[in-house]
Amino acid sequence: MGNWIHSQIQRPDRFWKPVRSAIPALAWGRVYRREWLAGDLMAGLIVAIMLVPQGMAYALLAGLPPQVGLYASIAPLLLYGLFGTSRSLAVGPVAIVSLLVASGVGQVAEMGTAVYWQAALTLALMVGAIQMGMGLLRAGFLVNFLSHPVLAGFTSAAALVIGLSQFKHALGLSTPNLEFVDTAVYTLQHLAETNFITLAIGLGSIAILLYFKYALGGQLKRRKLPAGLVTPITKSAPLLVVLLATLLVVALRLDVAAGVKVVGYVPAGLPPLTTPTLDLTLWRALLPTALAISFVGYMESISVAKSLASKRRQKINSDQELVGLGIANLGAAFTGGYPVTGGFSRSVVNFEAGANTGLASMVTAVLIALTVLFLTPLFAYLPQVVLAAIILVAVASLVDIKTFRHTWRYNKADAASMLVTFGAVLAVGIEMGILLGVAAALLLFIWRTSRPHVAVVGRVGDSEQYLNVQRHTVQTCPRVAAVRIDESLYFANTAYLEETVLRQVADQPELAHFVLICTAVNFIDASALDTLASLRQELHDAGVTFHLAAVKGPVMDRLRAVGFADSFGPENIHLSTHDAMKAIGCA
Amino acid sequence: MGNWIHSQIQRPDRFWKPVRSAIPALAWGRVYRREWLAGDLMAGLIVAIMLVPQGMAYALLAGLPPQVGLYASIAPLLLYGLFGTSRSLAVGPVAIVSLLVASGVGQVAEMGTAVYWQAALTLALMVGAIQMGMGLLRAGFLVNFLSHPVLAGFTSAAALVIGLSQFKHALGLSTPNLEFVDTAVYTLQHLAETNFITLAIGLGSIAILLYFKYALGGQLKRRKLPAGLVTPITKSAPLLVVLLATLLVVALRLDVAAGVKVVGYVPAGLPPLTTPTLDLTLWRALLPTALAISFVGYMESISVAKSLASKRRQKINSDQELVGLGIANLGAAFTGGYPVTGGFSRSVVNFEAGANTGLASMVTAVLIALTVLFLTPLFAYLPQVVLAAIILVAVASLVDIKTFRHTWRYNKADAASMLVTFGAVLAVGIEMGILLGVAAALLLFIWRTSRPHVAVVGRVGDSEQYLNVQRHTVQTCPRVAAVRIDESLYFANTAYLEETVLRQVADQPELAHFVLICTAVNFIDASALDTLASLRQELHDAGVTFHLAAVKGPVMDRLRAVGFADSFGPENIHLSTHDAMKAIGCA
Repeated sequence: MGNWIHSQIQRPDRFWKPVRSAIPALAWGRVYRREWLAGDLMAGLIVAIMLVPQGMAYALLAGLPPQVGLYASIAPLLLYGLFGTSRSLAVGPVAIVSLLVASGVGQVAEMGTAVYWQAALTLALMVGAIQMGMGLLRAGFLVNFLSHPVLAGFTSAAALVIGLSQFKHALGLSTPNLEFVDTAVYTLQHLAETNFITLAIGLGSIAILLYFKYALGGQLKRRKLPAGLVTPITKSAPLLVVLLATLLVVALRLDVAAGVKVVGYVPAGLPPLTTPTLDLTLWRALLPTALAISFVGYMESISVAKSLASKRRQKINSDQELVGLGIANLGAAFTGGYPVTGGFSRSVVNFEAGANTGLASMVTAVLIALTVLFLTPLFAYLPQVVLAAIILVAVASLVDIKTFRHTWRYNKADAASMLVTFGAVLAVGIEMGILLGVAAALLLFIWRTSRPHVAVVGRVGDSEQYLNVQRHTVQTCPRVAAVRIDESLYFANTAYLEETVLRQVADQPELAHFVLICTAVNFIDASALDTLASLRQELHDAGVTFHLAAVKGPVMDRLRAVGFADSFGPENIHLSTHDAMKAIGCA
Repeated sequence: MGNWIHSQIQRPDRFWKPVRSAIPALAWGRVYRREWLAGDLMAGLIVAIMLVPQGMAYALLAGLPPQVGLYASIAPLLLYGLFGTSRSLAVGPVAIVSLLVASGVGQVAEMGTAVYWQAALTLALMVGAIQMGMGLLRAGFLVNFLSHPVLAGFTSAAALVIGLSQFKHALGLSTPNLEFVDTAVYTLQHLAETNFITLAIGLGSIAILLYFKYALGGQLKRRKLPAGLVTPITKSAPLLVVLLATLLVVALRLDVAAGVKVVGYVPAGLPPLTTPTLDLTLWRALLPTALAISFVGYMESISVAKSLASKRRQKINSDQELVGLGIANLGAAFTGGYPVTGGFSRSVVNFEAGANTGLASMVTAVLIALTVLFLTPLFAYLPQVVLAAIILVAVASLVDIKTFRHTWRYNKADAASMLVTFGAVLAVGIEMGILLGVAAALLLFIWRTSRPHVAVVGRVGDSEQYLNVQRHTVQTCPRVAAVRIDESLYFANTAYLEETVLRQVADQPELAHFVLICTAVNFIDASALDTLASLRQELHDAGVTFHLAAVKGPVMDRLRAVGFADSFGPENIHLSTHDAMKAIGCA
């Protein structure tokens, strides 16, 4: 009876707790405070002001009509606001994912066609399904195969590819879509065709954007403007250049008079309901791109989400975060959008402008919806070069030479995997490039662990400590070699282990005991087990007794399970180095 | 002046030492003892008796005329005798390499054509070049990417593939060359066409071979026959069934009367001088096969060479061994042969029959040369099914269920990579199968290190030892979490590390200090360095001080080089766990 009452009382929470963790908006909705509202509204507004021109620009970069970028900024933001665990992440179109879309979809359809857009929707569906699936299966750890150096090398190279692809807009050229090197050559060959009016508008836009980005904030602060106004003003630069350039084109009819390319007709109205294609051939062709976007998009998103959350001691659940992003992408697939993720700089702006909850995202979505309902006629005379300028300024800071220099100083192998990724992305394309980068990082890790650090150790004074003979003053016995190997023993380093031991034995003719110290051996795989057994035999044949010392508990459990400890000789396996030395008579 | 004399005296050895290490035959030639001769002659003879039928059988398995197997047993053996470091390795055609040849060359040429043989010669040239190159560049460590379980899974599956391919000979069927599953289905469908005379000869041969292999030796020993005679008698079984079956066919004209397939005309004469093709397209097509043969062949060879050498305290130089095998393969390429390696069972026979030096190999080569000069007419009426029986008996012992069971008990990940290789070789073919096996082994290793063992530790009594709280009775402080992570920190486990630390912090609300104990951390890569920095910030934001304890010397050197130690806070990095606990006030 008591139990029954107890379970009745508990039931509501047993039901609601998993629901709240699946829909984080319910969690913050229950405790929403009135004082959060101003921040959420302001942040939502500022992000919307940034996102309108950015969304159109990134859609063009992805090879899609400009309104697709706006469509991708409505439903995905509403859904992420409900299902995402970050309270300040600003989801939507971003530069690198747009580039991946252009590269992947460009291989299966021609830009500007309905088939192309359809394929982009399908890609969003696939990305959504992959991210949701990984989240539900708690397979988020898979993204860790993208190491930081590989990601940094990829981002830098992608920024260069994006920059170059926008360069043609700035020059007013019509460059076909080519690989990086070909585009560079083509652009140089056609420099003479530069449209100088277009170039001037582009340079002017870049100048205004850079001024707002780097100088204006400081000037306003020095004039004692309230901080609450500084962010909105500096972040409205893209909107400002859009308005100025549009007015200029309309006033002077530059589109007709000087051949300046404009965005043109953008249909008004809410996003259409769309259905992605269920064509297996298309799915197979898009799969590598979908995987790349799922991983790269998630990595970009989770890193900024984590760093912003920790500033307010909030927590990000990485698996739920995958689910949230996945649902946002599913939303994009069914409302005429294309793949989205959490953007780095937009999220920082959102946070700094005071976003307290996912409500800010929803505010942004509503404002973008109003834009596509009522404001699209304004974009008809917007020069494309302005959007190119916005992208150029945004991606310029992604080329990350500082990280490379820092990594090079810290660790040549990491720097090498960064360089491989960077070079491969430029040379063989972005998906293949990132794949080669991941492979390089894995192989470098294997290579590193295949030649572990080995230290011959000796006793420190009369203590029980045994340290590297090359770093410390220690005592050794000529009959005994005590060697510590600083790596788990597995197939890639068994030969190295065997050579190390046999060389030591050959170099010390009077040797009678070899002690292998296993403090740093976290596991021994089947290949290494075979090697230990044959080493024991080889040493025995050479008149040397083989000892193991300081084998860890979990490793020892395994060795016992297969009877290795017995066949090796239990008297030759010691709890610690000191125990081994005492048994041999060297301590 | 003194120096000059000294260098004059030293010069001969300075010249001869590298020469002797490049041509090991010069080393043992200088010290050759008269009492070694009997062993070398006897071993050479016994191996030749085994090798004549085996060589022809393996050549047929590789899709080549029988004499090619004999040609591959002359020049390669002479060259290995000169350049190899093993004194008892018996080089020549072997089953698994022959299968790889059939699979690889079968993709670029039709069996039985001159183009096919030409491609096999080219393959031998490529294998020779790859092995020599790896040996000279001291890149022998690369073969360690073939872990023992992968190799065992591959060998077992290859033995099944070979067995099935020989089964059709035993039934007297003409099965086209297909993948494993297709061959099995085809063979079953055509069982009704079995030639029963052929089947009877095959079963009879197998019975004799098995009797000689497993029973006769013991019987002879019980009858007190000198051991020096037992080996020659038991090992002559293949020759015996060859002679018996040939006599039977000739006497009853079974080839005409009963349709028993015979070897037919084998040209007499020494191996022809041949030149491999320098056709880039062919080279590219054969490259995967050449790499597979180079690696697999070397692995088979080096393992038996090492185990035999250690029995007599001789040394195998793995890089020189690659050079020796490479030169043997180059020899095969220019004398009408096909890829060779050191055979496991033949080498054991060579050793047991008393081979003391490479001279035994040379004796074998001379005897095989005499065979191709004078004895080939004898093989005209030799039934192919006898050769199939010889192969079947030889490969039956390669199916290795014991190793699988042992590995499964020891380590599920190793067993999984063995199973993947085994299944993939049967399902998708042998080169692709071994590639998938290698990839599986690497990924399982990464997966294993991506979820390292983590132990919360406490103080043992009043000592300076800190051990796992779950395995030992220890003291802990509620304000302090001391956690030992048993793995190097790198990109694949940074997220796991971060989650582990943050979970611990969330579970202990009163926590003020987190100590990460790094005794088992052999390196920290750039991704992990970033993670440590952001963890420190995240803990700081949560009011927890982050400490590192017992960082190893080489790891610490790296951290200092990039100023990490300073930015982390030198006062929070401690020499040992005990030092950290004392600084915190918990010891």
